[in-house]
Amino acid sequence: MDAREILLTHRSIRKYKDKPIEQGLLDEIITLSCRASTTGNMQVYSVVNTTEVLLKKKLAPAHFNQKMVFEAPNILTFCADFNRFNRWCEANDASPGYDNFLSFMTAAIDVLLVSQNVTMLAEERGLGICYLGTTLYNADSIIEILHLPKGVVPITTLTIGWPDESPKLTDRLPLDAILHQETYNNYSEARINEIYAEKENLPENINYVKINNKSSLAQIFTDIRYTRNDNEYFSEKLFAVLKSQGFM
Amino acid sequence: MDAREILLTHRSIRKYKDKPIEQGLLDEIITLSCRASTTGNMQVYSVVNTTEVLLKKKLAPAHFNQKMVFEAPNILTFCADFNRFNRWCEANDASPGYDNFLSFMTAAIDVLLVSQNVTMLAEERGLGICYLGTTLYNADSIIEILHLPKGVVPITTLTIGWPDESPKLTDRLPLDAILHQETYNNYSEARINEIYAEKENLPENINYVKINNKSSLAQIFTDIRYTRNDNEYFSEKLFAVLKSQGFM
Repeated sequence: MDAREILLTHRSIRKYKDKPIEQGLLDEIITLSCRASTTGNMQVYSVVNTTEVLLKKKLAPAHFNQKMVFEAPNILTFCADFNRFNRWCEANDASPGYDNFLSFMTAAIDVLLVSQNVTMLAEERGLGICYLGTTLYNADSIIEILHLPKGVVPITTLTIGWPDESPKLTDRLPLDAILHQETYNNYSEARINEIYAEKENLPENINYVKINNKSSLAQIFTDIRYTRNDNEYFSEKLFAVLKSQGFM
Repeated sequence: MDAREILLTHRSIRKYKDKPIEQGLLDEIITLSCRASTTGNMQVYSVVNTTEVLLKKKLAPAHFNQKMVFEAPNILTFCADFNRFNRWCEANDASPGYDNFLSFMTAAIDVLLVSQNVTMLAEERGLGICYLGTTLYNADSIIEILHLPKGVVPITTLTIGWPDESPKLTDRLPLDAILHQETYNNYSEARINEIYAEKENLPENINYVKINNKSSLAQIFTDIRYTRNDNEYFSEKLFAVLKSQGFM
């Protein structure tokens, strides 16, 4: 399968067969994924592969108890990791200056490139994945459960396993809504309406607005799915994590 | 080429042929890349494709005047973008609550998955890329040059074009330095030394330490390449950007 085919058939998979992933396959996927570009070739990231039922049960509440966290054979937690690099510096008469926000972002970027490589390779082999955005919401409990030391912050998580569902592709915005030529071309109000028209007119979205007694699809996002209160609460929690993990 | 082959031959390309990328090819690459997973299918990102010589010259200082910024036919700036989404909310009686750090991170994650897809697809077609980590260092001037409105922050940049060099693969840490089973397995000091031994013993690194009069490779990183002073300076600048772009 070429990269084009992989992407054309990508869907998040939330139901998995009760069938493990061979360690050799996983090792190969992670090894290859680490070929990703990395700032200064520092590789300031780690991947934690969790398969034990008890540990998955502990992780589940951090991910809002989504069923796939129990059901996927493997939970891969992708971490920004300056612990290893700092330890190397300290063992070599070098004084690391990576306890700051820029270094956190550097490590976060590094590990997200790896996670997307894992996604591509996994899907090429017939595996399915789902990203868990909850990772940053509840980084504090994930740190505790996975024993992440100072210098390590979980950035994203993949549930991964053999698909037991075949959901349809989801909609995407038109290309010219995303791609700007030369500089940023800001949108007229008319263009904003055009861009989101297809999404607003999907039967499932019309129904979603109706059963929630909302007057627009946008309100589903602002009032139900991603609310100001939640965002502000989790922002504060995340800042506290960056501080306690030594990135502030 | 399958994803495995693409990754096995991935190198950053810093020299490009004087040959444009057809817009059709670029459009196809970005369209497919947007099949990446995205939080709540919000697609809170934009890609700015810069080809004009004058604009590339303006961008170059933000990227420390690295030659490839002038020479690559295209500069792709990948941005966390809540501007479009916020505008849609406001046009639909919905009150967006995305002016916070969590939302910034959400958008940053979204766009990095896209950038890595672009990398894979580009390499599959024979194009070469180089990530520019300088993007976050000098986000302020990039915002000005590319006219990025409030709600938009550049996260990473790819120079992209037809390769005019064939550099060798760079080293990577051993798999078990990166991959932790079940929970994080912290490193003994002996293990730290083992992990970095290959890197330390590369002839070019031994030479690099020597010509810089350092006593270890780690000092090259802490004292020359990624210093505390620089990291702290750019961290503050980045925080100011998050504030001025409406994410604090």
